[in-house]
Amino acid sequence: MSTTTVKAFGAESKTADLKEMNIERREVTANDIEIDILFCGVCHSDLHTARNDWGGSKYPAVPGHEIVGRISKIGADVKNFKVGDLAGVGCMVDSCRECENCKQDLEQYCTQGMTGTYNGNDTHLGGHTFGGYSEKVVVDQNYVLRVPENLDLAAVAPLLCAGITTYSPLKHWNVNENSKVAVVGLGGLGHMAIKLAKGMGAHVSLFSRSPEKTQDAMDLGADAVIISTDESHMKDVQSKFDLIIDTVPYDHDLNEYIPTLNVNGTIVLLGFIGSLEDKLSTVPLVLGRKAIAGSLIGGIAETQEMLDFCGEKNIVSEIEMIDMQNINEAYERMLKSDVKYRFVIDMKSLKN
Amino acid sequence: MSTTTVKAFGAESKTADLKEMNIERREVTANDIEIDILFCGVCHSDLHTARNDWGGSKYPAVPGHEIVGRISKIGADVKNFKVGDLAGVGCMVDSCRECENCKQDLEQYCTQGMTGTYNGNDTHLGGHTFGGYSEKVVVDQNYVLRVPENLDLAAVAPLLCAGITTYSPLKHWNVNENSKVAVVGLGGLGHMAIKLAKGMGAHVSLFSRSPEKTQDAMDLGADAVIISTDESHMKDVQSKFDLIIDTVPYDHDLNEYIPTLNVNGTIVLLGFIGSLEDKLSTVPLVLGRKAIAGSLIGGIAETQEMLDFCGEKNIVSEIEMIDMQNINEAYERMLKSDVKYRFVIDMKSLKN
Repeated sequence: MSTTTVKAFGAESKTADLKEMNIERREVTANDIEIDILFCGVCHSDLHTARNDWGGSKYPAVPGHEIVGRISKIGADVKNFKVGDLAGVGCMVDSCRECENCKQDLEQYCTQGMTGTYNGNDTHLGGHTFGGYSEKVVVDQNYVLRVPENLDLAAVAPLLCAGITTYSPLKHWNVNENSKVAVVGLGGLGHMAIKLAKGMGAHVSLFSRSPEKTQDAMDLGADAVIISTDESHMKDVQSKFDLIIDTVPYDHDLNEYIPTLNVNGTIVLLGFIGSLEDKLSTVPLVLGRKAIAGSLIGGIAETQEMLDFCGEKNIVSEIEMIDMQNINEAYERMLKSDVKYRFVIDMKSLKN
Repeated sequence: MSTTTVKAFGAESKTADLKEMNIERREVTANDIEIDILFCGVCHSDLHTARNDWGGSKYPAVPGHEIVGRISKIGADVKNFKVGDLAGVGCMVDSCRECENCKQDLEQYCTQGMTGTYNGNDTHLGGHTFGGYSEKVVVDQNYVLRVPENLDLAAVAPLLCAGITTYSPLKHWNVNENSKVAVVGLGGLGHMAIKLAKGMGAHVSLFSRSPEKTQDAMDLGADAVIISTDESHMKDVQSKFDLIIDTVPYDHDLNEYIPTLNVNGTIVLLGFIGSLEDKLSTVPLVLGRKAIAGSLIGGIAETQEMLDFCGEKNIVSEIEMIDMQNINEAYERMLKSDVKYRFVIDMKSLKN
């Protein structure tokens, strides 16, 4: 299969800084779309994969799964896109398309395992897939999203992961103008959860341990901030919430949040927090038909629905733009939560 | 308020055996129904309340909340019942009727706390409520259920708690002929979960640690028995179930069951198992949008729906009939799970 060499930024090992390198992209096949990447958001998963924090990383690792660009080439059978169109790519570039989950537009739960945009098995070229920290990407048309023309494109990029990851549970648990939603954690995911839940008309609160985040949350549209270390605050919100979107990416005690759920309420975990160190008390679940659930990104059709929703409601991410060359510094700042709220790489910088 | 003295069976303290005693029942007020009790099921909660295992027991404790009888008297404003009708009473005899939950027919989650059929606050006579281990009971018409005439009345009694406790989550999580349901634990609740899920047309499996329960489960209508200590059995059912009804009343490791849930699947806990000793792994929840939930009995309207459903489908509990005088021995046998599957007291024995 013929390929094109493109510039990218990646890590040669788990201890190496990311640096410029060349990678191969396949020539478009009949169903493929080639995208000139304009912007790529920086997700925590990028850092964890580059550093093999979760195990299973393949090298060189070229992260990036919040991709926005313009179509530069299309295959003969591509139907809904043309050269020059805006396009987005999120966390996956393929799945089996045949299992019960894929058939229900739940490709993120493909029983064969979806193909990650990076660190997945590249079924075309062999080896593993390379992500959006690169000049171009080639993706099957069924896994390419249309991007609304009216939005700030750099700020659209994080919608492809942080956006859909929070949109999908909000939709699945039927959030609407009668809903009371709370968000735990104010980072890339948390700030999108506030914006999207507000966009759906819900009353939105942020749980925070830091009173200094109050103004930030209000600026994002939150109706209230609950200081979770303040007993009287917590007492005020007992049995209040229909849905809690928990974006915290490390182990924490869920027992304090469950009493704030209303009857039939659910707390949805979005982070890979592993095993809960604190023993989970099950009695409050029984006494209020409450639930603890998890959720993983969203399917392709739902991601498109989210982008269209954001176009209509003028919702984008809050971002800090960086050059590709500053990615290693950006990772260090992410580890300190020193970003409001998502780094986005201006991919022009890679072409310099 | 005028009262009638009736015979009952109760415990004078947490260490005392249950014995015959006299209690007072109020004369029917305008909205009341007096029931001559024919049969009363024996629930684990009866034993835990008599022995103050959960704290908060009031004495004398007269348990019993699986009550079937015939109406002997009605108040002036009683509309849907007449003297001579069959009637049932379950776990509650009142609730605030005004909170959001009561208004939605979810009286079991009344924000003021429902009034338990026993050990609740008796708002008419003061003191606490006395349950069904007695000759008669007087209950507000809104908390009395109609009992289908075509069923074995003794075997109907356990439907009022064990039946509704399993019916409610099966309905809430939309079990139907396309559902794959599994049940954990084969006792009073578990055997009803099998019968009711089969009645709804689902494919039903039992998780068991004991191969000798296989025939029993099949006799109750189960389609399959999974020996949970057998790795190959567990591997065969990975990602299989839409709903797991977990009836086990003591702490146990949920981590082994979660992988057997399909995408969007839920494991519902019905027992008061307290805090989970085993650390809960949250990653499988995220990777399959799975949930851990709880559920408590059911509302009055739903309990009526369940009784009507059982009448239509000819579903009753499997019971062993006892005399009132044998209740203490029955409690000891329950603690050893030595009953298939519910004791029911023939209340004639109290009149002797």
